[in-house]
This record gives sequence, C-alpha cells and structure tokens, in this order.
Amino acid sequence: MEDLVALCKRRGFIFQSSEIYGGIQGLYDYGPLGVELKNNLKKSWWSSMVYERDDVEGLDASILTHSDVLKYSGHEDTFTDPLVDCKSCGLRFRQDQIPDYCKDEDLTEPRDFNLMFKTNVGPIDDGSNYAYLRPETAQQIFINFKNITDSTSQTLPFGIAQIGKAFRNEITPRNFIFRVREFEQMELEFFVQPGTDEDWHKTWVKERTQWWIDQGIPENKLKIINIDGDDLSHYSKATVDIMYMFPHGIEELEGIANRTDFDLGSHTKNQGDLDITADIIKNDSSTAKLAIQDLDTKKWIVPYVIEPSAGVDRGVLAILNEAYSEETLSDGKKRIVLSFKPHLAPIKAAVIPLKKNNTELVSMAKNIKNNLQTLGVGRVVVENTGNIGKSYRKHDEIGTPICITVDFDSLEKNIVTIRNRDTMEQTKMNIDMIEDFFVDYYK
Amino acid sequence: MEDLVALCKRRGFIFQSSEIYGGIQGLYDYGPLGVELKNNLKKSWWSSMVYERDDVEGLDASILTHSDVLKYSGHEDTFTDPLVDCKSCGLRFRQDQIPDYCKDEDLTEPRDFNLMFKTNVGPIDDGSNYAYLRPETAQQIFINFKNITDSTSQTLPFGIAQIGKAFRNEITPRNFIFRVREFEQMELEFFVQPGTDEDWHKTWVKERTQWWIDQGIPENKLKIINIDGDDLSHYSKATVDIMYMFPHGIEELEGIANRTDFDLGSHTKNQGDLDITADIIKNDSSTAKLAIQDLDTKKWIVPYVIEPSAGVDRGVLAILNEAYSEETLSDGKKRIVLSFKPHLAPIKAAVIPLKKNNTELVSMAKNIKNNLQTLGVGRVVVENTGNIGKSYRKHDEIGTPICITVDFDSLEKNIVTIRNRDTMEQTKMNIDMIEDFFVDYYK
Repeated sequence: MEDLVALCKRRGFIFQSSEIYGGIQGLYDYGPLGVELKNNLKKSWWSSMVYERDDVEGLDASILTHSDVLKYSGHEDTFTDPLVDCKSCGLRFRQDQIPDYCKDEDLTEPRDFNLMFKTNVGPIDDGSNYAYLRPETAQQIFINFKNITDSTSQTLPFGIAQIGKAFRNEITPRNFIFRVREFEQMELEFFVQPGTDEDWHKTWVKERTQWWIDQGIPENKLKIINIDGDDLSHYSKATVDIMYMFPHGIEELEGIANRTDFDLGSHTKNQGDLDITADIIKNDSSTAKLAIQDLDTKKWIVPYVIEPSAGVDRGVLAILNEAYSEETLSDGKKRIVLSFKPHLAPIKAAVIPLKKNNTELVSMAKNIKNNLQTLGVGRVVVENTGNIGKSYRKHDEIGTPICITVDFDSLEKNIVTIRNRDTMEQTKMNIDMIEDFFVDYYK
Repeated sequence: MEDLVALCKRRGFIFQSSEIYGGIQGLYDYGPLGVELKNNLKKSWWSSMVYERDDVEGLDASILTHSDVLKYSGHEDTFTDPLVDCKSCGLRFRQDQIPDYCKDEDLTEPRDFNLMFKTNVGPIDDGSNYAYLRPETAQQIFINFKNITDSTSQTLPFGIAQIGKAFRNEITPRNFIFRVREFEQMELEFFVQPGTDEDWHKTWVKERTQWWIDQGIPENKLKIINIDGDDLSHYSKATVDIMYMFPHGIEELEGIANRTDFDLGSHTKNQGDLDITADIIKNDSSTAKLAIQDLDTKKWIVPYVIEPSAGVDRGVLAILNEAYSEETLSDGKKRIVLSFKPHLAPIKAAVIPLKKNNTELVSMAKNIKNNLQTLGVGRVVVENTGNIGKSYRKHDEIGTPICITVDFDSLEKNIVTIRNRDTMEQTKMNIDMIEDFFVDYYK
C-alpha cells in the first residue's frame, strides 16, 4: 500500500485534499492522471449499464437532498454508529474502536451518532431549514421514479443508473481512498415484477462480477459472499457482496441488494391502496404514487428493486493495486509498471520526439498527437523531454500502453517506432498506419 | 421559457429536485436526456481544454473544503449578500430585493450574510469542526498548484482544468437552472509570467467565445463586456464577461478574469520572500510555496493567472434555448425540434423497426444499434413503438440528429431509411455503409 500511495502522489494520481492546510481526514483529490483513470472507469460503467442496454435510463440528481427523503428512507433513524466518550482523555470513539488506554470506568454509555452531513439552506439559520448531503445516490433515483416513467417509454423490467458523489461523516476514515468521507458511487436501481426479483438478483451478481473482471480484476482475487441474518440492512431481503483482496484485507468492492418494494413503498403516497410487502414508515408527505400499472389487469404494482451499488474510489484502488508491479529486467534493472487495461489507461499514447529542440521532430510529433486526439479515444500527449529511455520508464510507471517515437527515419522514410508497455517490444510502423492501429488497439 | 421548462420535464431533461416532497428552491435533477446533454457539453469542454492542448492538466478535487482555504481566499470575509429583516412580516430579504409591502420603518439595518454552505465534520459537533462546500472549484486548483507542478513536467505558461459541483446559498434562486444553489462549473486556471497576463487574457477571451459559437450559440446572441470599477471582484485586475441573451434577459454565461498573483500569493507560505503584487491577507497556516523557479535566474516567480470560468447549467440552458424551435410544416402541421449540434445531442441515433412485434425487424434494429454503440460516439437507442411518424416527432423534439428505419426492404435488400432531423429528408442506405456514415457524421 505504501508504494502505491507514494506513486499516486509522485505521478499525480491522488493527493490528500486541502494538504497545504494540514488536510482533512478522509478527503482526497484526483490529479491529472487520477481524473482520467476515474473518468475512464465511470465511462466504462455507463457504457455497460446505459449505452449497451435498452432497458436502463440515466440520471444525475442533486447532492443536497430534502430531509423528508432521508426520513422516509430510514436514514435519519438507522444510519448511525454508536459512539462512546472517554471522560478521562476527552476523546470520542466508535464503540468497537475504543483504544486500550481508555479505562472502562471512564467511558459513557454509547450514543447513536448519525453519519449524514447536514447544512443550512436559505437565509434563516435557526436549525429548521436544512438539507442533507446525500449519503447514497440511490434515494435520488427512487424519488425520481415517476419523473422517469412519465418521460420515457420504459416498462418493467427496467433500471435507472446514476454516477455521483455521496457523503458520510465517517468517524475513522482509513485505508487511503477505501473508506472516505466524500466518495463517488455508481448505482443502478433495477425495477422488476415482484416474484422475478430472485432471478434478477442472480443475473445481476453474474453481470457485475464479469464487469469487474473486464476492468482487470482477476477472478481469483474476487470472492462472492452472501450477507445473512443480522448483517442484512433493514431494507434488504438478500444482499450479495463482491469482495476483493485489497492491500489492507478482503473488503467489499460492490454490493448487490434485493431491496424489495421497501424504497418505492416508503416514498409513495396512499400506501394503504397498494400491496406493499416491506415494513415501511407511514408517509403523509409524498405527493406521488411510485408504482406501475399493469396494462392487462389495470392493477398498480410496486416493483421490487435489485441494486448493484459500486464504489468508484474503491474501484480505482483495486485497479491500481492489480495494475501495479515491480519487474526485474534481464539486465538486472528494475521497472515499475502499471498494466492497466487499455480502456482505463489515463494516457492512451505518448508521442516522443527523439530530440527536444529539433523543430521538425517536435512538429511531426505534435501532428501525430493531434491526429490521434481527434479519434475520441482519450488523452494523447507529446512527451518532449529529449530522453527516450526516461520517457519510456515514466510511461511504464503511469500505465501508458503505447509510446510512439519520432526520429530522423520519421522525417525521411515516414516511419515511427511503436513501443509496447507490457512486452517492451519496439516495432517500426509507417505513419499512415498509426491511426488504424490506434483505433483497433482501443476497440 | 415556460415552453422550454415544460419540454424539459415532459421529455426527461430536467426535473425539480426532491419534487415529491415539495422540492427545494434552486436545486434541479438531470433526467435521462439531460444527463447526456450535460455530459456531452462537459466532454466538449474537457476535449478543448485538456486533450487538444499540451499545456493543460486536469484535476478533480473534493467538494468539502478546509475552512482555511476559504479564509485566505477572502470568501469568509467578502462572499456575502446584505440581508434585511422586516419586523412586520417576519421575512428576510436581500437589500436590493425588498418587496414594496414592507414599510421602511419596519426594516432592520442590513447585515452581511455569507453565501457559503457549512457542514460539521467528525464526531464532535460544537461548531469548531466544520468544512465548507466549495463556492467555486477554482480554490481547489490553487491549493493543488504545487502537487501538480511536482508531478508533471509543466512550466509556464500552463493551466489546470477542473469540472465539478459548487454550492452557493443563494437567497433568491431564480430563472430555472440559471441561478441555483447547487451547480456545476468548468474552470481553467491558466498560469502565466507576470507581464504576459494581458495578452493571455485577450487570447482566452477569443478562444472561449469561439468555443461557445462551436456549441451552437450564434455570435450575434453573445455580447462581450468589460467589467470595470466597482463591479470588479477584489482579486481581479480585469474581467471580461461573455454575456448571452437568455430567455429572461442578457446575463453572464462565462467570465474570464485576470486574477493576478492574488490566489497563489494568498495561499503561499513565507509571502514576504516573494514579489507578490496583489493585496493579500497574511498567511501563517499554509505549508507550501506556490511559485515557480526561473531556471536561468533562479528567482522564484508567483505566476499571474487567467481564469475562464463557465457555468455548465447556464451553458445547458443557453444551448437548449438556441436549439428550441417550433416550425410550421408545409402541410400546416407544427413540429417542435431541438436542433442541437450533433456532438451535443443526447441521443446520436434512433433505430426504428417498422413493426413493433416483428421479431426479424426488431432483431435487425437491435443489431444495428449494437454495432453503432461500439463506435464510442454516444447513446444509440432502439425506438420500438411501431409508429414511425410518432417516433420521428419524438426524436425531433429531443434533438436526435438521425433516425434509421428498418423495414421489409432491410430484410430483403439490406437497405434502411436514414431520416435527417433538420431537413426531414429521407434517404435509402445500404446497411454496410451505416457505420462509416455514422462515424463521419459525428467526426
């Protein structure tokens, strides 16, 4: 983990947030390479969830959330950690994380501490006008259910997908970007006919496991576990976690929950008119019926929902961890390489002029970059350091799959050298063929 | 404006946030089409700012921000509106927005009200542990200046680009998504040698104006104005606003400010050792020198910064407004059409089987969609309603540039009909040619 954190800072993947003022625990910033890696991962999710399907619609809702949303979802009551104060040292701890030096007789009884961030909205700050920073993106999907069924032609089964920030006031953020206070989620809420939920749950567990494998996480590093009994959330009939062997231990990468009709039922008006199976709070505030009418029987159905919920930051950490290796080369030297899958690599190609100050070489390199950049595959850079060996090592370390070197043969014979990150093989290629090669490589 | 707002809700572009609980003023959610439009606009900005240049690096920093950042930036002191209480009606107003029915003798003296949202961080809630929701993305760029110069090979002039949410507790949010409490910004901070700042300022005004024209805003709807005198922000030597004729009046779409060395100077340690021209607060908290060493003279320089700062939501509103039109056709019927530039269209193509229940037609439509979807251009959908005319009208109204109709000629002769949104012309095309046509169209 230390090597990875150091590389992330040195190369511009991830920095401690507000670092020059001492930082705030559990907050991180994504630097020039990190933002590309993270965006590529989100793009891959969005493609697989929205673009490649015909039964999923996208959403991007606000972070600030009406308190009623989190009241009826159950978060105001249950989204808590038990905290204990030590009367001797004056500090506050989670009940399961009290340090040994605190003596039992000095500890208070545990009190529930809500993990949601709150903020005052509007000009009057008397405690009555507040919103929450959403603790998950899911609730914003549920409360938009009617907006989306009204504005699209979707019928059951169908899903709503969202990527965005969520916030939790964790008592003890830890393990780099694994457990943080501000994070990004990729959540799908997939609405199905009650009775088909168990089959759909299995389908989504398979789909999501395969997706992580496609991002470069080997199957043997993943463990699929069933959450049962007391560990199940209050809304869940069944939850399957996709666990990954992180550097700090095996932990959740994604959870796939069968949330039943709990959420739509909780947020709906006139609940008594509907057959809702979940145990929900009585709702007198909602103005909408979150249900679907069966066209044949005319009966209103509150769909069950299957939720694959993945953490973007955890995903980035897992992918960095898998990609990272230190190799000893045949000449005894070492190299660090990040073997990202091509679609995730922050930089798709580096074009390197042999000499830094040669106008013709540099200008040709810039032309090649500009041509490749228009292909819409991702970021291409000109690496104008004048040191080919150093440039190759840098791009190994940041995971660039392809380096393209422009030398005097390029000017005379229209030929460049293509260097492969993983094999380190160098091959000559006619400049006219680079575009096709590049597009094929990233297909 | 009313027509546009109604269309946005009906077709799934933009919804009032937390609507089923009465909503919160100044918060909006982007629906299935809105999220694609917004993402396409952000992608276009990122391409032009980061990918197509070699002198700009990207960043994606946290929203929660250390209070010291906003202290030294001047926001704690100056990011305020003057508010007045009416002792008669009990309401609170901005000083320039007091309604006529409030009598002068009932009004209190104006008090400064800070527009930043605050939230408590960590388990102790005694008012001492708080962070701000960033009121602009810019400050997170400045405080990462050293992280980025240390981790990249950038030298002056160079920029740092960021897209992300920002939050302002506006007293009176208004004009749909124009003035809201939660919004998204696209900000570039471009660092230059002092003395070259005025030229760079002019360059960026030109670049940014052209970019908006490329997004479909006609030049004659834009007005470039110089902000002067009392309207200049405390950090600014000069600001140029790109104004647009919104439905509610002419207002700022983007501001391009010459922020001098104010920001890097404000956040730097040992300020006295550096030649800082701006009037800054003394900083004893920062741990970093935010400056660049001249390789020849060895002297440390605090760069000037030119900031093109654009609002994503305002951009979306301007683009929707320009794209919207109601046309009367030659047969006297009306059609609503959103004439987005192709790269911004939420849906790139709709593939429409002639009959809803014909397995062969539907399966061929799905194959065409799947092939086009792999090209990475954006969302392609199968529109399986069985009503071609209705499908064309729908896709005019949501701005889909191309409809591809699959009929019995497609099964027998491998030929589809391509229908153009703007001309409404229909042409026959061999299925083998669609891919090339599609890629060319979106190049």
